[in-house]
Amino acid sequence: MTEMKDKPLSRFLDELAGKQATPGGGSAAALMGAQAAALVSMVCNLTIGKPKYAEVEAELVALLRESEQLREDLTGMIKADIEVFDRLMACYALPKAGDAEKAVRNAQIQAALRVATEVPLACAGACAKAIALSRVAAEKGNLGVISDAGVAVMAAYAGLKSAALNVQINAAALKDRAFAEAKLAELDEIMRHAEDESGAVYRIVQAKL
Amino acid sequence: MTEMKDKPLSRFLDELAGKQATPGGGSAAALMGAQAAALVSMVCNLTIGKPKYAEVEAELVALLRESEQLREDLTGMIKADIEVFDRLMACYALPKAGDAEKAVRNAQIQAALRVATEVPLACAGACAKAIALSRVAAEKGNLGVISDAGVAVMAAYAGLKSAALNVQINAAALKDRAFAEAKLAELDEIMRHAEDESGAVYRIVQAKL
Repeated sequence: MTEMKDKPLSRFLDELAGKQATPGGGSAAALMGAQAAALVSMVCNLTIGKPKYAEVEAELVALLRESEQLREDLTGMIKADIEVFDRLMACYALPKAGDAEKAVRNAQIQAALRVATEVPLACAGACAKAIALSRVAAEKGNLGVISDAGVAVMAAYAGLKSAALNVQINAAALKDRAFAEAKLAELDEIMRHAEDESGAVYRIVQAKL
Repeated sequence: MTEMKDKPLSRFLDELAGKQATPGGGSAAALMGAQAAALVSMVCNLTIGKPKYAEVEAELVALLRESEQLREDLTGMIKADIEVFDRLMACYALPKAGDAEKAVRNAQIQAALRVATEVPLACAGACAKAIALSRVAAEKGNLGVISDAGVAVMAAYAGLKSAALNVQINAAALKDRAFAEAKLAELDEIMRHAEDESGAVYRIVQAKL
């Protein structure tokens, strides 16, 4: 089967819009994060090597390495979200005729929900990192492509807020409340400064237009 | 040449990250808007036909028609942004040796800047429409996929704020200030309620999780 990232953009959008539950919002969140990382890379690529920006070159070379790693991670999460959601749906479809079947089904669902909480949490963390990288791009990048740092931060913020919804849904269905509360606390920590920080980066860009 | 929408997702991300100025933030903005429209369609497709949601079926059938048209429009804008930006770059590369060449070059640049202001303005308008459609999906859609309406509104909002940056940059470079101010006024009108409205839709979704 063709992996999602190898399908044409228009095909991804068709499948996103379609009657199947996957790909859904979790994959869209990862793609927004991947676009954010890609745009940070673009700002680096159009700054590095320009004599006018020689002073920040070393910093942007390091930034590019981070943004490209992050782009790879987030691109992988497009697929990870589909796998985890498909697995969860398969668990809900397990037979539940007797007590034994019910017990097996419930255990499987709970195991799948753990992964379905952790995968979007990792996406949220990666998007928060993309926000941090976009600040460097906005502060140091080539003024000719500075708006792309502004698009990067908005894409990263949207990816983060989107991934957060999936963490919250799946954590709510977990019976292991200690695990769920720990994951929600991690999410809170990731989210805490995201709104203010993404607004601040966007304003840095606007002030340079 | 293969149109961008027909290229694999990973290829789009590679080109977004790369040393070429296109595709850039304008195409990313259009793709975020298209993802928003696609997710509204998904919520419709997973609500229509379910007996539990029979009461809102007619409304969601109408919503789906709108979201699919909007998805088509926004998908087209991925390409439109590349074309308009490439044209603008080609104008800046025109010869400017004497006064005659300079006059031709300036006229061409100004003509390209008008289009480069109108194309992201249309994208901003389409993203604002996606925010409005995501409210209906959040209010009326199947609770099982309601988080996708939340992802839709965040994607649409990020697309809008991203497109706005491109309107602002290109309007700033226009010599025809009356035209530029008129376009910026249109953008303000589009933006006015977008922040509050997208926050409100996100909270509708969160309250239903």
